[in-house]
Amino acid sequence: MDVVSEGGTPWIRNAWYVACAADEIGASPLGRTICGEKMVFFRSSEGAVSALEDFCPHRGAPLSLGFVRDGALVCGYHGLATDCRGKVSDMPGQRVGGFPAIRSYPIIERYGFVWVWPGDADAADPAKLHHLEWAESPQWAYGGGYYHIACDYRLMVDNLMDLTHETYVHASSIGQKEIDEAPVKTRATPEEVVTSRFMDAIVAPPFWQMALRGAGLPDDGLVDRWQICRFTLPSHVMIEVGVALEGRGGYDAEDAAKASSIVVDFITPETETSHHYFWGMARRFAIADAALTDTIREGQGRIFGEDLEMLERQQANLSRYPDRKLLKLNIDAGGVRSRMMIERAIAAEQPGAEAQDIDTAEMVEL
Amino acid sequence: MDVVSEGGTPWIRNAWYVACAADEIGASPLGRTICGEKMVFFRSSEGAVSALEDFCPHRGAPLSLGFVRDGALVCGYHGLATDCRGKVSDMPGQRVGGFPAIRSYPIIERYGFVWVWPGDADAADPAKLHHLEWAESPQWAYGGGYYHIACDYRLMVDNLMDLTHETYVHASSIGQKEIDEAPVKTRATPEEVVTSRFMDAIVAPPFWQMALRGAGLPDDGLVDRWQICRFTLPSHVMIEVGVALEGRGGYDAEDAAKASSIVVDFITPETETSHHYFWGMARRFAIADAALTDTIREGQGRIFGEDLEMLERQQANLSRYPDRKLLKLNIDAGGVRSRMMIERAIAAEQPGAEAQDIDTAEMVEL
Amino acid sequence: MDVVSEGGTPWIRNAWYVACAADEIGASPLGRTICGEKMVFFRSSEGAVSALEDFCPHRGAPLSLGFVRDGALVCGYHGLATDCRGKVSDMPGQRVGGFPAIRSYPIIERYGFVWVWPGDADAADPAKLHHLEWAESPQWAYGGGYYHIACDYRLMVDNLMDLTHETYVHASSIGQKEIDEAPVKTRATPEEVVTSRFMDAIVAPPFWQMALRGAGLPDDGLVDRWQICRFTLPSHVMIEVGVALEGRGGYDAEDAAKASSIVVDFITPETETSHHYFWGMARRFAIADAALTDTIREGQGRIFGEDLEMLERQQANLSRYPDRKLLKLNIDAGGVRSRMMIERAIAAEQPGAEAQDIDTAEMVEL
Repeated sequence: MDVVSEGGTPWIRNAWYVACAADEIGASPLGRTICGEKMVFFRSSEGAVSALEDFCPHRGAPLSLGFVRDGALVCGYHGLATDCRGKVSDMPGQRVGGFPAIRSYPIIERYGFVWVWPGDADAADPAKLHHLEWAESPQWAYGGGYYHIACDYRLMVDNLMDLTHETYVHASSIGQKEIDEAPVKTRATPEEVVTSRFMDAIVAPPFWQMALRGAGLPDDGLVDRWQICRFTLPSHVMIEVGVALEGRGGYDAEDAAKASSIVVDFITPETETSHHYFWGMARRFAIADAALTDTIREGQGRIFGEDLEMLERQQANLSRYPDRKLLKLNIDAGGVRSRMMIERAIAAEQPGAEAQDIDTAEMVEL
Repeated sequence: MDVVSEGGTPWIRNAWYVACAADEIGASPLGRTICGEKMVFFRSSEGAVSALEDFCPHRGAPLSLGFVRDGALVCGYHGLATDCRGKVSDMPGQRVGGFPAIRSYPIIERYGFVWVWPGDADAADPAKLHHLEWAESPQWAYGGGYYHIACDYRLMVDNLMDLTHETYVHASSIGQKEIDEAPVKTRATPEEVVTSRFMDAIVAPPFWQMALRGAGLPDDGLVDRWQICRFTLPSHVMIEVGVALEGRGGYDAEDAAKASSIVVDFITPETETSHHYFWGMARRFAIADAALTDTIREGQGRIFGEDLEMLERQQANLSRYPDRKLLKLNIDAGGVRSRMMIERAIAAEQPGAEAQDIDTAEMVEL
Repeated sequence: MDVVSEGGTPWIRNAWYVACAADEIGASPLGRTICGEKMVFFRSSEGAVSALEDFCPHRGAPLSLGFVRDGALVCGYHGLATDCRGKVSDMPGQRVGGFPAIRSYPIIERYGFVWVWPGDADAADPAKLHHLEWAESPQWAYGGGYYHIACDYRLMVDNLMDLTHETYVHASSIGQKEIDEAPVKTRATPEEVVTSRFMDAIVAPPFWQMALRGAGLPDDGLVDRWQICRFTLPSHVMIEVGVALEGRGGYDAEDAAKASSIVVDFITPETETSHHYFWGMARRFAIADAALTDTIREGQGRIFGEDLEMLERQQANLSRYPDRKLLKLNIDAGGVRSRMMIERAIAAEQPGAEAQDIDTAEMVEL
């Protein structure tokens, strides 16, 4: 499953990735590596975000050590200034007309995030950015955070597309044995991979008891619980999760009888063995309760910190034994199908893509 | 002397190495790399220790992040459970009959340590474990500790088989110029290398004055001192050390006239440039005096910490100049002969071993 | 500009480099890597400094972990002792007559520094050491410090030969926009590269206001300011800097009307991506004012700390994109010419040097 096109990278280049939360870029520029590219992000005078290569063409200094002046990004070493598209606009004592342009990357600021397209700029299509209803509708509240994680971003995709790990990694918060026992169903369409699990008439684990209280519902009765994980390209996982009072319809229960939310996971490759993880939770209950948003963020941050250690140690093991074949079980179907979708998209980006075969020979029946 | 069989490792694979002190494995599993192999150690329900490869066949997570349940080791990621021999016994929602076995390593728990055989399991022979009288007899007391040291394990063998370094590295505790002045004698048999030194009618250095007081003997008179270093395969060094009141027979003096002990050194390779060092002292005087055990352990720990810095800096120098030839002097005979014994054993492990030549061309006369 | 002779190093080997400040070597030896060579510096009984390879021929321990006894350097591992020229003079229980010599490096102690010649000892010529008047004359005061910087030493040469960076990197101390605006003039002779800038009738920036007060001059009037950077082989940059009260002759003003000094920069390669930076300021005003020396040292240390971060991040960028071509502008002429001088000297050190071509094809007109 880890086959990478020769000389290629294990990620799709022509896609929108989350580069940062919108509020990470203020008066100062931000340097961050996305899909192996060193980038600097800054806001021009109109407030629009730009992304350029974080490398001054003069002497190679990182532009992210500079500052913004009148909407231009000024290198902090010798004062070369560039506009929002990477055209050098000014440098003391120099005629800059013939200076080479700095590479710029297509950017969209939307949904509280800055999205960047690391590949071919001509191919960048705003229409390819997902629509995220929870990020725009006043019916939803959102809180989230950021972790830098030293593992291949695909290990995080695997992690989120197989929630049986909750029973073990998150035993004290969201895990419960019923997750292991409930059958999981995976289906793939050309647009997404969906893996889902429904658990009826169970005791809510501590995190969900907290959520029930937040939603103004009793926390001590039986509930129907659901988990619907949706992978979409290039590497986003949205997970519909929730609990409803027992027998009220479960996932389809009326809002007043459930605590329902979406676990939001934007997984952006940094290098081949590290990624940026933007996590959060969008909810449709008690949306005006800012204290609840903080409580959920804190709980979720603690839970995802448990994943972090496991994933970094897993990466160390896989780096130590790179040729080892892993098992692919029914519970792995979500991750396996997601990786296949990534692989096909990477292959389709290669020159002469039609002629390429995707190696699925070692795929097991899922 | 650092010749390694092509593609091979600089250590013997088919031998018993100390993996850990017995009390390092309690309710939780322990992960440790031994001879380049990542291993996990745990106690099954009967309390017996098992060693498996620290790599879950499902997704490659380290099993050492898991837990023990009913004598089985359960992976902390998705719940794969293995028995003490590496056979997968259970996993939620899975039929595990066809799962591949996890590699297991032969283990013996004895003498307060867990011993592991990293090589060919079929060749593992409990009879090849050394007999250690001091570890079983009620006539002896023992205390010790553990250091992780970032150098080739053979530099530690060299260190212990040439105690002239005590004069310099341990000047304030066990060193004294008489060590340098006394002649050293080295002899090799097929089973061991022994290098010995006897110093008569000298002033005891501070560590031995402390030991004399502990043994109920005067600390201000002259003593006869001895050091008898014994190297045995794969990489153990036992050093008989002691002082007797002057003229009472030295090494052969009656117990009441001497403080006599064995410096215990189990040197277990971790990687090519690091090792696990299990050190301690077994003594035949004041064996009921637990406070003395602590005092000796503390003193010995401080002394071996001095070696640690020197050895790690020596390794850095040798890594920087890998082709440099070193001197081999009479005082180095113990280390040189020990390395020859290691080399022969490594060569004998290779396929078609009989046909192999050991390169001893550069050996000097010792 | 970064062309290095095949198999060669990016520095001149046959030259005097600053190894350390004279007071860095006291009773204990000092270990330091100079031009890729691990060296140990120590004072023999007469107080003269010696430099040897920091590698004991016995077992490879660093001699810098040892101690000095009766003018000999004694290895801290097994007591091998060497004289100031690297001849082994003694070792307990050994006849050392046939021991190989330890490599020794030519040394000069002068001007408050220890200078070492890392190349061919036979070629070492004391006459090639620069004369530094400020270091000997009672008309001057000096204070300075040391930084270890993780970048190619030539990036520091570039930095010091183009002071337009002061406007950006040191905006709050010595930078001012007039530096960018004043034309810079660069000329190269066979002995040095000189780049100079004169700024008349400007407001003194904070550092120079402090210096004016120190010199007993008013700090609130206009001044004439100058910067004359002189690069000499192998990698020293002396910068004449100062301010004079406006209209009193600028650089040529009488001493009573100016604060005049030399920024001293000895840049010694450690590895290909790190160097030792010995910085300081020699001044001809208020030379008896020790408190002023401290104030200047503190200010200069803070300023050069700003360079350190920029240079290390620049190095990281260049290491990430090693094939990227950089711009060479008029302001870079000083650095470009200095690197050409270094390159020619490196080429001249190669066997069959006459036949070598220096690649200047990519040089722009400066």
